[in-house]
Amino acid sequence: MVRRSGRRPGNQDTKQSILESARTVFAEAGFDKASVRAIAAAAGVDAALIHHYFGTKEKLFLAAMNSPINPAELIPRAMAGPREQAGERLVATVLSVWDSPAGAAAVALLRSAMSNEWTARLMREFVVTQVLRRAIKELDIDEKEAPTRAALVATQIAGLAMVRYVLKVEPVASAPAERLVAAIGPTVQRYLMDDLPGVFDA
Amino acid sequence: MVRRSGRRPGNQDTKQSILESARTVFAEAGFDKASVRAIAAAAGVDAALIHHYFGTKEKLFLAAMNSPINPAELIPRAMAGPREQAGERLVATVLSVWDSPAGAAAVALLRSAMSNEWTARLMREFVVTQVLRRAIKELDIDEKEAPTRAALVATQIAGLAMVRYVLKVEPVASAPAERLVAAIGPTVQRYLMDDLPGVFDA
Repeated sequence: MVRRSGRRPGNQDTKQSILESARTVFAEAGFDKASVRAIAAAAGVDAALIHHYFGTKEKLFLAAMNSPINPAELIPRAMAGPREQAGERLVATVLSVWDSPAGAAAVALLRSAMSNEWTARLMREFVVTQVLRRAIKELDIDEKEAPTRAALVATQIAGLAMVRYVLKVEPVASAPAERLVAAIGPTVQRYLMDDLPGVFDA
Repeated sequence: MVRRSGRRPGNQDTKQSILESARTVFAEAGFDKASVRAIAAAAGVDAALIHHYFGTKEKLFLAAMNSPINPAELIPRAMAGPREQAGERLVATVLSVWDSPAGAAAVALLRSAMSNEWTARLMREFVVTQVLRRAIKELDIDEKEAPTRAALVATQIAGLAMVRYVLKVEPVASAPAERLVAAIGPTVQRYLMDDLPGVFDA
C-alpha cells in the first residue's frame, strides 16, 4: 500500500494538531493516565482517527516525542543476555543510539527538556515508562525496589549524555564507546541489581 | 569600609560591562587562557579596575557565572577526611549546595547550559577548572588519569542534578540526601580512585 498522507496538507494539519494535543495531555496527565480519547477531544477529532494515523497510545507518544528510536524494540534486545552484563549492554545501547545520526534528535530533546518544564515532564514520562520500565521488566527486578533502581540508572545515563554530547567535557566527549562502557557499565549494573545498603532500608 | 559602589549606577554599568566581556572571553578562550588584560580590553577598561572590583581572575569568573558558591572554599573542606569516603563526601557536599536556597541559581545555570552552546562552554570551564580540578588535587590522583576520572565524576553528578532537580524523576527527586549519598557515593568513589580496567589501557 502506498501511503500518501504525508503529501496531503490537510491530513498533515490534522496530524500536527493531534501531536500537539498529545504532548499537552501526556505532559499534564502522564503517560499512564493519558487516554487517546482525551487527546482526541483536545484535538477535536475522533479517537478512531488517532488509531488510524498512529496505532497504539505508545506509538502516538513516540511520535509526539519525535523519538528517533522505538524502546519497545531496542530495550528487550539490549537486555537479552547474561544478567551480570546488563549494565554494560544498556550503556552500549544508549551510546550506539546517541552516537548515531539519530542522536542529534535526542540531544535536541534533552536540551529542550532542560529549558522547558513541560518538555521536562514529557521527557520524564518517556524515560520512565518507555525506557526504564521496560529494562526493569526484562531483568525481573524486585517491584518495590524497581523505581529507585530505575531512577538511579537515569542519573548515570542522563549525566553521560549531558557530559558527552551537550557540555562536551573531554576526554568523555570523544572517548571510544567501549571505554565508556567499561567505566560506566558497572555503575549501571550496580544500580540495577546489586545490594544497595542504606538505600532501601527504612 | 563602607562599599557603596552598588548604589552608583555608573559603576554598576561598568561592572556589568566587565562581567559581559568576561563571559565572552572565558567562553571563547577557556578559563586557563583567558587573561584579565583581554577581558579589560574587551570591556574598554583598565585591567587594574577589574582587579579593584573583582580581585583575582578566579573571583571574576565566579562573579561572571553568578556562582552561589565558592568551590575554592567548599571543595577542600569536602575532600578533607578519609580517602575511601571521598566519593560519599563529594555527593553529600553537592546535595547540600543544591538542596539549599542557593541551589535555585545552580539549577538555572544548568538549564541555561543545556540550551545555549555558549553557556555550556562556561559551565564546562567552571566544572572542570573550579570543581573537578580542585577535587582531584586534594585527593592526589595520578595526573594522567585525572581528566578521565574527573569527567566520569561529572557524568554522575550532572545526571544526579538533572534527574533530581530538573526532570524530577521519583523517587530520586524527593529522596533524603543520605540515601542518595549511600547509592551514588560509591560510584563517585570508584571513578575517583578505584582501578578502572579497560578505561585507561591503550
